[in-house]
Amino acid sequence: MYKIANPRSIAFFGASNHITAMGTNLLLSLQAAGFEGPVYPIHYKEDRVLGLEAYRDVLDLPEIPDVAVMVLPTRMVNSTLEACGRKGIRKVVIVSGGFKEVGGEGIVLERELVEIARRYGIRVLGPNCLGVANLHRHLNTTFIPYEGPAGFIGLASQSGSFVTQLFDYLARLGLGFSTAFSVGNEADIDLVDAMEYLALCPHTRVIALYIEGIRRGRAFVETARSIVPHKPVVALYVGGSETGRQAGFSHTGALAGPDDLYEGMFRQSGIIRARSVTELFDFCWALGSLPLPKGRRVVIQTHSGGPGAAAADACGRSGLELPALSDDTVEKLTPFVPHTGSVSNPVDLTFTKNPNDFYWSIPGILIQEERADVLLIYFLTPTQVVKRALEQMGVPPEQVSDQAQKLMDEQCGAIARLVRTSGKPLVGYTFRGPDDPSIRGLMDRGVPVFQGPERAARAIAALVKHAERRDAPEGDCHVKGAFGGATERPRRDGDGV
Amino acid sequence: MYKIANPRSIAFFGASNHITAMGTNLLLSLQAAGFEGPVYPIHYKEDRVLGLEAYRDVLDLPEIPDVAVMVLPTRMVNSTLEACGRKGIRKVVIVSGGFKEVGGEGIVLERELVEIARRYGIRVLGPNCLGVANLHRHLNTTFIPYEGPAGFIGLASQSGSFVTQLFDYLARLGLGFSTAFSVGNEADIDLVDAMEYLALCPHTRVIALYIEGIRRGRAFVETARSIVPHKPVVALYVGGSETGRQAGFSHTGALAGPDDLYEGMFRQSGIIRARSVTELFDFCWALGSLPLPKGRRVVIQTHSGGPGAAAADACGRSGLELPALSDDTVEKLTPFVPHTGSVSNPVDLTFTKNPNDFYWSIPGILIQEERADVLLIYFLTPTQVVKRALEQMGVPPEQVSDQAQKLMDEQCGAIARLVRTSGKPLVGYTFRGPDDPSIRGLMDRGVPVFQGPERAARAIAALVKHAERRDAPEGDCHVKGAFGGATERPRRDGDGV
Repeated sequence: MYKIANPRSIAFFGASNHITAMGTNLLLSLQAAGFEGPVYPIHYKEDRVLGLEAYRDVLDLPEIPDVAVMVLPTRMVNSTLEACGRKGIRKVVIVSGGFKEVGGEGIVLERELVEIARRYGIRVLGPNCLGVANLHRHLNTTFIPYEGPAGFIGLASQSGSFVTQLFDYLARLGLGFSTAFSVGNEADIDLVDAMEYLALCPHTRVIALYIEGIRRGRAFVETARSIVPHKPVVALYVGGSETGRQAGFSHTGALAGPDDLYEGMFRQSGIIRARSVTELFDFCWALGSLPLPKGRRVVIQTHSGGPGAAAADACGRSGLELPALSDDTVEKLTPFVPHTGSVSNPVDLTFTKNPNDFYWSIPGILIQEERADVLLIYFLTPTQVVKRALEQMGVPPEQVSDQAQKLMDEQCGAIARLVRTSGKPLVGYTFRGPDDPSIRGLMDRGVPVFQGPERAARAIAALVKHAERRDAPEGDCHVKGAFGGATERPRRDGDGV
Repeated sequence: MYKIANPRSIAFFGASNHITAMGTNLLLSLQAAGFEGPVYPIHYKEDRVLGLEAYRDVLDLPEIPDVAVMVLPTRMVNSTLEACGRKGIRKVVIVSGGFKEVGGEGIVLERELVEIARRYGIRVLGPNCLGVANLHRHLNTTFIPYEGPAGFIGLASQSGSFVTQLFDYLARLGLGFSTAFSVGNEADIDLVDAMEYLALCPHTRVIALYIEGIRRGRAFVETARSIVPHKPVVALYVGGSETGRQAGFSHTGALAGPDDLYEGMFRQSGIIRARSVTELFDFCWALGSLPLPKGRRVVIQTHSGGPGAAAADACGRSGLELPALSDDTVEKLTPFVPHTGSVSNPVDLTFTKNPNDFYWSIPGILIQEERADVLLIYFLTPTQVVKRALEQMGVPPEQVSDQAQKLMDEQCGAIARLVRTSGKPLVGYTFRGPDDPSIRGLMDRGVPVFQGPERAARAIAALVKHAERRDAPEGDCHVKGAFGGATERPRRDGDGV
């Protein structure tokens, strides 16, 4: 698996100089990512493809590339795989579709593909996938150029789209993938293999799984159970409803199982289950950024009653508790809370004469509250308001922007320091956009700030759940029923179809 | 109620030339909104406040203003209200807190406040509120400057924050409030009054309610029932969990009831219930923008299997159905779908040689599918990819940006036209940000595009539910238990405390 995510050289089939070819787009993405090793396009008549020297035949290549990527018409795939085998290439990413997922003839073709791969000892990612993106290695074989930084989320996905089409989504949150695998039809390399790789990958702090149907149930559970104690795993399963099952089936030919079977499997493995793509990455964000809480008791700090009440309600619905504050905390807080505010939980300040109290004194007191395990803070201040205040305080107009930025940087820095020094998780929520400087400043410093209290509460609940499961995964490893009991990798020709 | 949302002139208590005073911030917001009528600051010693001529006493004002706004220390409110009454002012917004919501002495003060108001026939909004924002009238009495356009969402909120702190949130979606009321402690004007106003307001296409606890249950249900047949109402209730109830109580002193009581009340009224702030405005977005569907059958159009499967699953979980396509539709679609794609539902194109098919031919066919009531489309194309395609097609570099914008404008225009001409709802989902030009172009043309399939599915379910309830609200108007049976407005001194 290592070479497929960290190749030194790549043979590329299916790119041309025409933008209408999908392969061309994939090679452009690879170039845009800044891949540093040699790339060898194979083309039957062009001498150069996208500025690179092209070869008529894979056998003509000056070296044996670590990996071949194929974006060819279905009918050409198996013969090309055969040629790769003869050349000595042992890792192949097959992007082309038209195999098991279309049924009929496609099933026969995929069986043939697997036989060729076995004969040559080739490990295949795909077919019907978008390959792999390892941004720490400037590798991106997918359709869409990578935007944003390399990050700490490792992804193994039965959907290629969820690899490529979330680059931008994650970048807006200041997040990114460490390595992301699109496993496609899983003719050979599957979710379990990808998960094993990510468990060992030093850039990966949390593993995300997008699942339409699991083929090797027992191996999946055993692998996950061995990973969870040292790295959290979050899974989104979309095959649980009838409509989702049918759609997944026509997508990758995977056979989905009843929702409660998967629920049980996740629970046994210690995997955190997400119910949407949003949750999948919210949970990864919290789990990859924050220390784990010792329990489920949350203290809420807010400037506003409504967002405080909504957060309290959201915490309650997510199974979290809001303890009463200790006398000690109440005493320390009192000087900072006006009489219109509330020193219960949520701590509702309503208004602070000195805005800095909200970033230094008050969270500093609350994070030490021994009755609470997590501090949840509502962040609301628009840059506009900060600037307005500075203007009114007599700051010269030309200095207002700089001073506002400086002030907000200091405020965000103070909050981030609290997380580092306290060892307790601190989570933010807001209705401001992620590009508001006061929010961006927190996120860039590793403090997750979620859109709305519900997302924050569910992310905290995921932290709590992971802390509990890590220490005591439920029950033993029993996976029966639809998955069979074999730990051996079964023959998978037509499996599940 | 009309004058309080549409005043021609305002007396303003509590603003000074010091930014640390909350009142100053509110007056600055009012000025920033561009309020066109006269504003009279009352100040005990300043001659001018924020550039406006100030008056020592309300009795000195040259006219009787339509509305007075008070942002004064608690102890000064009642005597000032008395003075307003003597002046002849009949609408007062009391922003000041420290009344019923703090208990004890505050309860006594609020009772006194109500008595003064009755004596003079004054209608009071608040206390402990942020007043009203009517952007069609450039009116904003709240703490935070209004950002973004005036819109079609009317809000009545028991939280002031949810009025002010969502301006920016809505603006990012291209949405805005028509008029938004923060009702605070509801000493006089309450949710029901605000709802009645919004029902008649011609700028309001949908009513949003943020609820911590309802005082006049019967009146609430009757009013909502009379509104729903001609205008949708969406409610978020945060008092349903134990934690939410306690937080709401300390916020406005409202008594929350068991969750199922509220659930029943919403159902009887034909109100759509939202479970988060995000849902509240997602539902309003869909209900205010789209024609109502005839049923719950959805057809999904996607470029990608994973997002398609996730959308199918989300639809299933939201109680929507995915019908099989009719033979007629399959026949018309076939020329546009490559062999790797799927002409079942979701329609998964995987790849289109001509990207315009995705915006013209294919949705044009699908929206005519008689077996479906709603068309749900996955939008993914980043501007970068469009530009890359144009570059490769030989468009001169200096024209690429303009041509990309033009192409995307045409594509977005084609989709928006489909909604207008078909009379069927068309909803989008994406993982791109709302600022991506291809997404922004759709939203600006009135096509809701949600972040992720789950939000889209739930918004469609809200459309379906509203269509069903509008035609047949469940059962008769029975509201018993905690709310009593009186339709008369009860005396509310200390109610619910």
